Amino acid sequence: MTDAPAPTPSYSYLGPAGTFTEAALKQVPEAQGTNWRPVNNVGEALADVVAGRSVAAMIAIENSVDGGVSATQDALATVPGLRIIGEYLVPVNFVLVARRGTALAEVRIVNAHPVAYGQSRGWLEQHLPAHGHIPATSNVQAAASLFEEGDRADAAVAPPGIVELLDVDVLARDIGDNPNAVTRFVLVGRSRELPAPTGADKTSVIVELPDDEPGALLAMLEQFSTRGVNLSLIQSRPIGDALGRYRFVIDLEGHVRDERVADALLGLRRFSPNVIFLGSYPRADRREIQYHSKYDDGVFVEARDWLRGILSGEPEA
Amino acid sequence: MTDAPAPTPSYSYLGPAGTFTEAALKQVPEAQGTNWRPVNNVGEALADVVAGRSVAAMIAIENSVDGGVSATQDALATVPGLRIIGEYLVPVNFVLVARRGTALAEVRIVNAHPVAYGQSRGWLEQHLPAHGHIPATSNVQAAASLFEEGDRADAAVAPPGIVELLDVDVLARDIGDNPNAVTRFVLVGRSRELPAPTGADKTSVIVELPDDEPGALLAMLEQFSTRGVNLSLIQSRPIGDALGRYRFVIDLEGHVRDERVADALLGLRRFSPNVIFLGSYPRADRREIQYHSKYDDGVFVEARDWLRGILSGEPEA
Amino acid sequence: MTDAPAPTPSYSYLGPAGTFTEAALKQVPEAQGTNWRPVNNVGEALADVVAGRSVAAMIAIENSVDGGVSATQDALATVPGLRIIGEYLVPVNFVLVARRGTALAEVRIVNAHPVAYGQSRGWLEQHLPAHGHIPATSNVQAAASLFEEGDRADAAVAPPGIVELLDVDVLARDIGDNPNAVTRFVLVGRSRELPAPTGADKTSVIVELPDDEPGALLAMLEQFSTRGVNLSLIQSRPIGDALGRYRFVIDLEGHVRDERVADALLGLRRFSPNVIFLGSYPRADRREIQYHSKYDDGVFVEARDWLRGILSGEPEA
Amino acid sequence: MTDAPAPTPSYSYLGPAGTFTEAALKQVPEAQGTNWRPVNNVGEALADVVAGRSVAAMIAIENSVDGGVSATQDALATVPGLRIIGEYLVPVNFVLVARRGTALAEVRIVNAHPVAYGQSRGWLEQHLPAHGHIPATSNVQAAASLFEEGDRADAAVAPPGIVELLDVDVLARDIGDNPNAVTRFVLVGRSRELPAPTGADKTSVIVELPDDEPGALLAMLEQFSTRGVNLSLIQSRPIGDALGRYRFVIDLEGHVRDERVADALLGLRRFSPNVIFLGSYPRADRREIQYHSKYDDGVFVEARDWLRGILSGEPEA
Repeated sequence: MTDAPAPTPSYSYLGPAGTFTEAALKQVPEAQGTNWRPVNNVGEALADVVAGRSVAAMIAIENSVDGGVSATQDALATVPGLRIIGEYLVPVNFVLVARRGTALAEVRIVNAHPVAYGQSRGWLEQHLPAHGHIPATSNVQAAASLFEEGDRADAAVAPPGIVELLDVDVLARDIGDNPNAVTRFVLVGRSRELPAPTGADKTSVIVELPDDEPGALLAMLEQFSTRGVNLSLIQSRPIGDALGRYRFVIDLEGHVRDERVADALLGLRRFSPNVIFLGSYPRADRREIQYHSKYDDGVFVEARDWLRGILSGEPEA
Repeated sequence: MTDAPAPTPSYSYLGPAGTFTEAALKQVPEAQGTNWRPVNNVGEALADVVAGRSVAAMIAIENSVDGGVSATQDALATVPGLRIIGEYLVPVNFVLVARRGTALAEVRIVNAHPVAYGQSRGWLEQHLPAHGHIPATSNVQAAASLFEEGDRADAAVAPPGIVELLDVDVLARDIGDNPNAVTRFVLVGRSRELPAPTGADKTSVIVELPDDEPGALLAMLEQFSTRGVNLSLIQSRPIGDALGRYRFVIDLEGHVRDERVADALLGLRRFSPNVIFLGSYPRADRREIQYHSKYDDGVFVEARDWLRGILSGEPEA
Repeated sequence: MTDAPAPTPSYSYLGPAGTFTEAALKQVPEAQGTNWRPVNNVGEALADVVAGRSVAAMIAIENSVDGGVSATQDALATVPGLRIIGEYLVPVNFVLVARRGTALAEVRIVNAHPVAYGQSRGWLEQHLPAHGHIPATSNVQAAASLFEEGDRADAAVAPPGIVELLDVDVLARDIGDNPNAVTRFVLVGRSRELPAPTGADKTSVIVELPDDEPGALLAMLEQFSTRGVNLSLIQSRPIGDALGRYRFVIDLEGHVRDERVADALLGLRRFSPNVIFLGSYPRADRREIQYHSKYDDGVFVEARDWLRGILSGEPEA
Repeated sequence: MTDAPAPTPSYSYLGPAGTFTEAALKQVPEAQGTNWRPVNNVGEALADVVAGRSVAAMIAIENSVDGGVSATQDALATVPGLRIIGEYLVPVNFVLVARRGTALAEVRIVNAHPVAYGQSRGWLEQHLPAHGHIPATSNVQAAASLFEEGDRADAAVAPPGIVELLDVDVLARDIGDNPNAVTRFVLVGRSRELPAPTGADKTSVIVELPDDEPGALLAMLEQFSTRGVNLSLIQSRPIGDALGRYRFVIDLEGHVRDERVADALLGLRRFSPNVIFLGSYPRADRREIQYHSKYDDGVFVEARDWLRGILSGEPEA
């Protein structure tokens, strides 16, 4: 009797093939040679993870031009049991494509995902001042729609890799308004095992502020500053039940196994009515975290030993 | 010889008629009986103001479910010379409409503006579990598309007022997931005259943090807390040139003619490489601002008199 | 064979009998019926404790008019191994006494301990405008000196109890300038056993600030405020090696066995190059400590459990 | 007809000649060649100033070993109309002197001012373990008393310059426990004219905290930190009416004519129920004040101009 072979694991991503999300997934060594499940949106990607259909999902979380991806931030705040296990950066640039034989001068209507449209608007307004816009659900779908019956678009904004997927003419390259645009992706799974600290880690949390406390945001930030923990991201999102109620999406420098980070999280948990720990994981840029030596692990350990001596009544060493 | 009659002023808003933005504009007494210019997006609305085609534009700035409207926040940060002169709230709820004679059971594809879709998704997934989604550029356009040639949608998510504009059947009412959802609008003009303080005012600013200063956000918040000024909104937006660089969109309680607010703005200006003053204006809810008497105007005036006495060398009174 | 009886314990205090310090010692139940060792100054009192000649010493630490007692504060900072085990308040008022038969009008020179002199100066300047002052080493000694050969004083400022010790006439009562003056005493021993928390406790520490850090005092205070710990005393004392270098004598509300206090002490220890824990003990006034419920012990325990779950990789409860 | 010659001004100091206070006064160029009035204590010195008998008084305010001089700090807090106009440092060291022909071995009783005694105690306990102590009102008086009838002292602790005043034998030199001990003096007058800023100035204030506000000290310190103003001294003194009520004696770096200092004082005045401005004056060590360029005068002026533009409704430059 032999064991059945372990099933090949799956990874979910915003499809179809050719999206920036797929480019992010290509950066994950352990995902190579596995099943890749293209999905239509963040909700489906995370549902795959929750249901166990995929071991992880790659989702966009922030764009250097457009800001945080609200759908992702809100999903991470409300779907329980998720953990970020990795971070990936993908440079973002766009081409304008059309069905074979189309000239730029003929383009009247452009199909584009709203984020891509926003990032190419400068170019489009300059070169196609009278164009109309049809929104698409993904960058690849924008181009694919050119071949759908009844579609009224003449051209589409798409990622450069689109030429490998579709038979299109490229009318213009590098039409993004910001040549340094980059999108940040996170790989999200369910495993509660913490990746080992690397010295170049990030920790993500979502924090609700206590109600009706002027200065609550200040008090929250002091939980970090008083332990020498820097934030690389802080973004407010509405909780959704009433105007003026927010939760904060926070990326902080360091790993929960770093003493200063663990102590800051303790302070945060005591302070906040709701803290969601989203994981500690290596930074995409692998840049080592800098912090003052007074927040070294050893300083925390020594202070605990000192306090333990006081509480136990032992004479000081 | 007689004077030519003054031309009727114009107000721009996200059209067509029937949008929530139009509902906001209906709340503005001085806009009644003027020309209303429907436009396609925030950029066009603000361009009308900048070019003098409209005296003001009504634009959505925040939704209680979906959060800040990025396009609005970014436009206010980058288009110079604008001032917010009023704030308006519009309750948000949705109906599902279709061409006459359509039954709910027949609906396979739904046309909806992405924000409206996000706010109705719970209802849609429950009642139309197999539906597909086509995104629209506005809530009214979603319904209007039902009558366009080649459109594949069977129903649309629309504001309740749609029935006055289009000949549709209402398949369901109140399909928004959050019955208290509300959108906040601001009226934006070019006049540099400050509305008079009412005791129930807001002041909006956009603030860039100094570079490379851990704790800069904390230091910025102290500029407010040390003068007893509460914030009703603080939201980060990417500056757009690189990941990790943010500006903050801030609404604070009070009017720039309140001494504590003026002093906080001074502190902010000294602290920040870039502060954009967007205006002081009455709050939509007309709720009087509460603050500790130690931040009264008189306290500021008295302190200045005291310091002036010291600097002038006069004996203390 | 029988055990030798345990020797009667001794308590040291600033003598001779009749001083305010003796009045404080009379408030200590466990000191009644033991040996009381009168000493000449704080140094001798603490030396008795260190050498084991006394189980504890009663020493003045603060006066409501004159402030902290520098000699006591400096001794607690430099003599190792001491612990405060109790706090006592003694109302301070003074009488003017003289050798039998002296009239007030005859008094030209007054003997008084400098602190007592400072607290009676208003009365003395009003009633004896031309008097001279000879300083004494204690309040009782001032009166006792009236009977020493060669002494030039005609009257002495002394505690009311002096009439039980010396054969003097009381020329005036209640000559202290502040009728509410009170002196705070502490009982200091060597035992490292912590008194049990009573809900009305104080904790005393002496803290050195890190060098050359503008804002170090602010950062130290945040260690307390961020845990909801109030200070009832903070006083700077020179470290003594150079101008501008200070240590801080701090009394904080609560017991080291209170979680919020323990956590604040951890933060303090990590922050400071030198923290001396002087003890947790019941307040003299037995007033229960008030603090916000968000700093309850349970909040700290729950946060630790939460973090432990994250670190262990267990699923959240 | 001729003018009467202007009377020679007087300076008061703690006498007699030979004290450290006189050494401080010798450092004041404008005091040379004037009348010097020796007085017995701080109160008399300040009374001379208030009554116009002296243009200024030199008084000790802090000792590097012994800390703040309480009598001086309290007098500055309670005598109205005083201003510090200069700061002076005097190295402190002591000799042990006796009547001609006395041997060290013969010394049983030592006369010493209490501060001097405290600073020489280490030497005295080592070389004269069985000595007694008689307190004196000044360092010079301690030695002078050796020649008074009935005095029981055999030796006195005195400043080195005593040999120029009295016919004594020096039994030991440099008996101070800290070779770097220094006393800080201030010159106090009534003129309300501010000394011109030098770039190396100090400003002294006395500040009362608002009642019953946990965190009030923190809030006070933020008034300085938020304007980049460093403190060189902060010391609590009891207000005197009840235990637990304090005022703070503060020296801050900079001159009230520096914008950042002026703004901090405004904040302080608004915050505190009672601020006493004691003056801005050149530091004794003439060390230039360092501060971040973001707190330059120009930054404050620019921010005011910006705010003025907003309030006036003028278009931005």
